[in-house]
Amino acid sequence: MALLVMKFGGTSVATVERLRRAADRIIQEKEAGNQIIVVVSAMGGTTDDLLAKAKQISNHPSKRETDVLLSTGEQVTIALLSMVLIEKGYEAVSFTGWQAGIRTEASYGRARISAIDTSLIRPCLRQGVIVVVAGFQGMTESGDITTLGRGGSDTSAVALAAAFGASRCDIYTDVTGVFTTDPRYVDQARKLREISYDEMLELAYLGAGVLHPRAVEYAKDNHIELVVRSSFSNEPGTVIKEEVGMEKTKLVRGLAFEKNVSKVTLLGLSNSVSAVSRVFDVIASKQISIDVIVQNVLDEAQTNLSFTVDRDLLDETLDVLRTHEKDLEFNRLIFESGLAKVSIVGSGMASNPGVAAEMFHTLAKEKIKVKMISTSEIKVSTIIDEEKLPAALDTLHETFHLAEEESNSFRPGN
Amino acid sequence: MALLVMKFGGTSVATVERLRRAADRIIQEKEAGNQIIVVVSAMGGTTDDLLAKAKQISNHPSKRETDVLLSTGEQVTIALLSMVLIEKGYEAVSFTGWQAGIRTEASYGRARISAIDTSLIRPCLRQGVIVVVAGFQGMTESGDITTLGRGGSDTSAVALAAAFGASRCDIYTDVTGVFTTDPRYVDQARKLREISYDEMLELAYLGAGVLHPRAVEYAKDNHIELVVRSSFSNEPGTVIKEEVGMEKTKLVRGLAFEKNVSKVTLLGLSNSVSAVSRVFDVIASKQISIDVIVQNVLDEAQTNLSFTVDRDLLDETLDVLRTHEKDLEFNRLIFESGLAKVSIVGSGMASNPGVAAEMFHTLAKEKIKVKMISTSEIKVSTIIDEEKLPAALDTLHETFHLAEEESNSFRPGN
Repeated sequence: MALLVMKFGGTSVATVERLRRAADRIIQEKEAGNQIIVVVSAMGGTTDDLLAKAKQISNHPSKRETDVLLSTGEQVTIALLSMVLIEKGYEAVSFTGWQAGIRTEASYGRARISAIDTSLIRPCLRQGVIVVVAGFQGMTESGDITTLGRGGSDTSAVALAAAFGASRCDIYTDVTGVFTTDPRYVDQARKLREISYDEMLELAYLGAGVLHPRAVEYAKDNHIELVVRSSFSNEPGTVIKEEVGMEKTKLVRGLAFEKNVSKVTLLGLSNSVSAVSRVFDVIASKQISIDVIVQNVLDEAQTNLSFTVDRDLLDETLDVLRTHEKDLEFNRLIFESGLAKVSIVGSGMASNPGVAAEMFHTLAKEKIKVKMISTSEIKVSTIIDEEKLPAALDTLHETFHLAEEESNSFRPGN
Repeated sequence: MALLVMKFGGTSVATVERLRRAADRIIQEKEAGNQIIVVVSAMGGTTDDLLAKAKQISNHPSKRETDVLLSTGEQVTIALLSMVLIEKGYEAVSFTGWQAGIRTEASYGRARISAIDTSLIRPCLRQGVIVVVAGFQGMTESGDITTLGRGGSDTSAVALAAAFGASRCDIYTDVTGVFTTDPRYVDQARKLREISYDEMLELAYLGAGVLHPRAVEYAKDNHIELVVRSSFSNEPGTVIKEEVGMEKTKLVRGLAFEKNVSKVTLLGLSNSVSAVSRVFDVIASKQISIDVIVQNVLDEAQTNLSFTVDRDLLDETLDVLRTHEKDLEFNRLIFESGLAKVSIVGSGMASNPGVAAEMFHTLAKEKIKVKMISTSEIKVSTIIDEEKLPAALDTLHETFHLAEEESNSFRPGN
């Protein structure tokens, strides 16, 4: 008998009607002979409502108490979903994070799962009872309630799948799978049948936003096969699994992008050993995340350093740099907004330099100026003007034949 | 250093503004040098909202899951109240029922507290931290969440007071104390300074509804002094304590009443040993609660049996009796609605038969017909026409000098 973990996100459990639909999915898998662990998020909107209450009290509410507060969201869902399953004639039992034996480190709001005591849920599975677990939450060694932070329910699902040796972990969400790029931007966007963990990580980090990167990493480390699929339709979803044995013929598998990008450049920065690290220390001290970094050494004494930040964090970034102008030893600070990042992702790219060239060639043909470039093993990112983003996505999608099914292979240079 | 338990009901914590006011009360007692355990209910309305969701799913939602669902209500309150206390500069830590070590029997929806593991909260108290506990909930031996049913938060507060040897248990509510009778009905109603456990029990059971009888019984058994007081004003409340040493001079201490009373009479019921018990078995099988019972034996073969039920349960009561007409061996079934019950309560009454006589005399003087009488050690109840209720309350309140302070004593027959 196979064990299946099924995870339903906030929009999939937002109303009683949707809970009923989720229950039908669960029952379908149960009737197919599987043992079932269901993992659920808070009903859509609940977490925001609870946080709003906390913000009425304090701008920085106690982190421990915020976790006590937020964890009620999933607890409501597990109770209601279990009621629905029972009402439909199936045995179901709810488990909060602590009841499910999900142990975490003691860092409130972003705890990592340290262990899962499977002895608490096993007896129910053995008796054929459907187990409904609250995602996003756990308990510390000393009995305090914790939450796992963003993407927490996905992580709970994957961690449970790993702990119980599940044959599959299905992530039910409001999209039908992972697409070559965002269908809201590119009409030709196509749902992928399969994608590797690494490719998914790049797509997720770069803004595809279907599944949290933490959960994908966890799945990769534990060899858990994930399926992203819609809770609103019966379409097959996208399988996320090991590279090995994947029947795929394309080097580029998808396009990721991000808007609201700003570029900051420090001209004439000292070329001393510590200068660059001091710049990033100062920025990190304000909890500002930076993304693409490009450095050009001009001569032995000086260097130009550019990096991108989210538009919303630009002012704060400029402030902190100006405040430390003396210590940081640079000549001039310039910046530019209204930019976007476009990336091509595919795990076969590393060994094929022609792919990057093809990308630049395509963008140039459309008169799209590339302002920064950054590459990794499985992706090439470019910074362009945001107003050129739709054109860039369209032309890249076409160039790399992303709309075509996998059998129609693309070879660089063809 | 004294240990104080402070309990805040649903209306006292219904909004963030009210939580702030409750926090000010708590801080006042903390600054006075007390160790503090706070017990809170769900924010007013929350429990009903959650139950409404469950009812959308099932007319008889799983009892286990209903408890999982409802227990989130108090969990939200403990988190928010702790945040408020911390924001005001005090150390505070929240405890759910299970975190507080409140063990209960495994009867969902109406669990009784079986034990409290004080080792979980003690370290916080010792460090001067304000402890905020979720009322109404606990955990079974096997780790399931339970709720205590109606009046559960009051019971949690008293049980914690007993377990920790608190010097007092303050019940903050939306009234300023226990009154001689309902001030909405009798202008002259006066707040009592003190009342004994037994008197409070009769007043509560009979409809005064300030504090749940279960909590009063628990306090009585454990010699916990209770104070009922308003969370919205600084007035001293009513102390509920042992009879012994209470400075009181009146025999009648309060008037309780109930509306929507119906009377059912079985005429010519068989006078066999089992006839009466069979009647009540049949009624109990439908979960119908009956109240005042009066039986008159007519002759050796027959008896007339009357009892009261809530108006809302009358039709169901009549149905079940008619269905079993043959088995129950009675001649005729008659009934009357539009009745009310009025009771005088006072622990000194048992030894003073004159009090009951004075009550009947007073009602007769106002031409209020008494339709049934029932007495206990510390109360006399009468069933009258509901339309006469205001007049009855007024005249009894005056006859027994309830508006006057305790020093002006009443003696029956004076």
